[in-house]
Amino acid sequence: MKGCFLVFEGPEGAGKSLQIARLAARLSASGVPHTVTREPGGTAAAEAIRSVLLDRPELHLDGVAEVLLFSASRRVHVDEVIRPVLGRGEVVLSDRFELSTRVYQGWARGVPPETIEQVTRAATGGLVPDLYIVLDVPVMVGTDRREAHGGRPDRIEREAEVFMERVREGYRELAAGEDGIAILDGSGTPDEVEARILALLEERFPGRFRGANFPL
Amino acid sequence: MKGCFLVFEGPEGAGKSLQIARLAARLSASGVPHTVTREPGGTAAAEAIRSVLLDRPELHLDGVAEVLLFSASRRVHVDEVIRPVLGRGEVVLSDRFELSTRVYQGWARGVPPETIEQVTRAATGGLVPDLYIVLDVPVMVGTDRREAHGGRPDRIEREAEVFMERVREGYRELAAGEDGIAILDGSGTPDEVEARILALLEERFPGRFRGANFPL
Repeated sequence: MKGCFLVFEGPEGAGKSLQIARLAARLSASGVPHTVTREPGGTAAAEAIRSVLLDRPELHLDGVAEVLLFSASRRVHVDEVIRPVLGRGEVVLSDRFELSTRVYQGWARGVPPETIEQVTRAATGGLVPDLYIVLDVPVMVGTDRREAHGGRPDRIEREAEVFMERVREGYRELAAGEDGIAILDGSGTPDEVEARILALLEERFPGRFRGANFPL
Repeated sequence: MKGCFLVFEGPEGAGKSLQIARLAARLSASGVPHTVTREPGGTAAAEAIRSVLLDRPELHLDGVAEVLLFSASRRVHVDEVIRPVLGRGEVVLSDRFELSTRVYQGWARGVPPETIEQVTRAATGGLVPDLYIVLDVPVMVGTDRREAHGGRPDRIEREAEVFMERVREGYRELAAGEDGIAILDGSGTPDEVEARILALLEERFPGRFRGANFPL
């Protein structure tokens, strides 16, 4: 069977990790081979780059430098993790991919879309997810959820709430123009959000994920 | 006066640092304001990226990932060091710039020129040096010394030599097609090489560098 590349997107606190874990558990129970991964990261090189990006707030990096660094780690991630899994006909569940760059560095920080597209193409070699699933939540919900987990904000998370409003707007605008990006209401209980995700998957890939644990 | 952006290129051991130091000393003695810098590096962020690239041989990075990382540090270097100096009408002497990426990752490692051009444009914002000065020297890689000892090259030494021949060829080919890249014979004594550099500068920028210590 053809591999399937699913990417979860949305602001921090939207519930991506929880929903990825739930979907992965269903895939496991249904005997569907899959790999869970995240951006930036997934390999030693990508993690080293991630650390330059996120753990050193004293370093000054403009939007374009961020795009280049995220793209470098994406390149390694695609080559060493994502393509091999898809090549085996398996499912990839990734926490973020290039849509994050378009939204955070492009829409919210003002890096021109052409610049992002050129750099991204070099990084991905043209690989596009089968579906982006964006969990949309009001900005305050995301912040509260993150704080409830005791998570410490990294450099990018510390940016003002105004920035997070632009991020939300960016996801919505980009989704409106592209069929490969689905926006889902990420509010409500985890069960409610999960039901929306499973319905979306059945709609987009009829029968693809049916099994002992699909649908709900 | 308009700033002037001079970049020294060539393989390791070509004499770039020595010639940059000599030219900087002449500029100082002539009262020409200038800044000496190098790639990748020059700022805290660029040095952190440099360290991912150069100090961690265990990390796997393909040619494109290298291009993206070098470009990220170049972006910071251009914004925080090079443009401000040029904006004050001063001289920048840089040890390497984007020609190194075209030669090492492009010509020698096979990353397509279009990929490098797209990524580089994002990094430099279109900034092009006033002149690249390539110091061309024969690739030796200790061949003479090794042969004098009756030793045969091992696999890695052989690979290094083939790679360095491709690097040399890359500089020559790119220089042949672009007026902004000058190839100079880097062999002979430091005084001889310096005389060639000063003659080249007078030819390309008549009167620009005249002063108490120009010409020789």
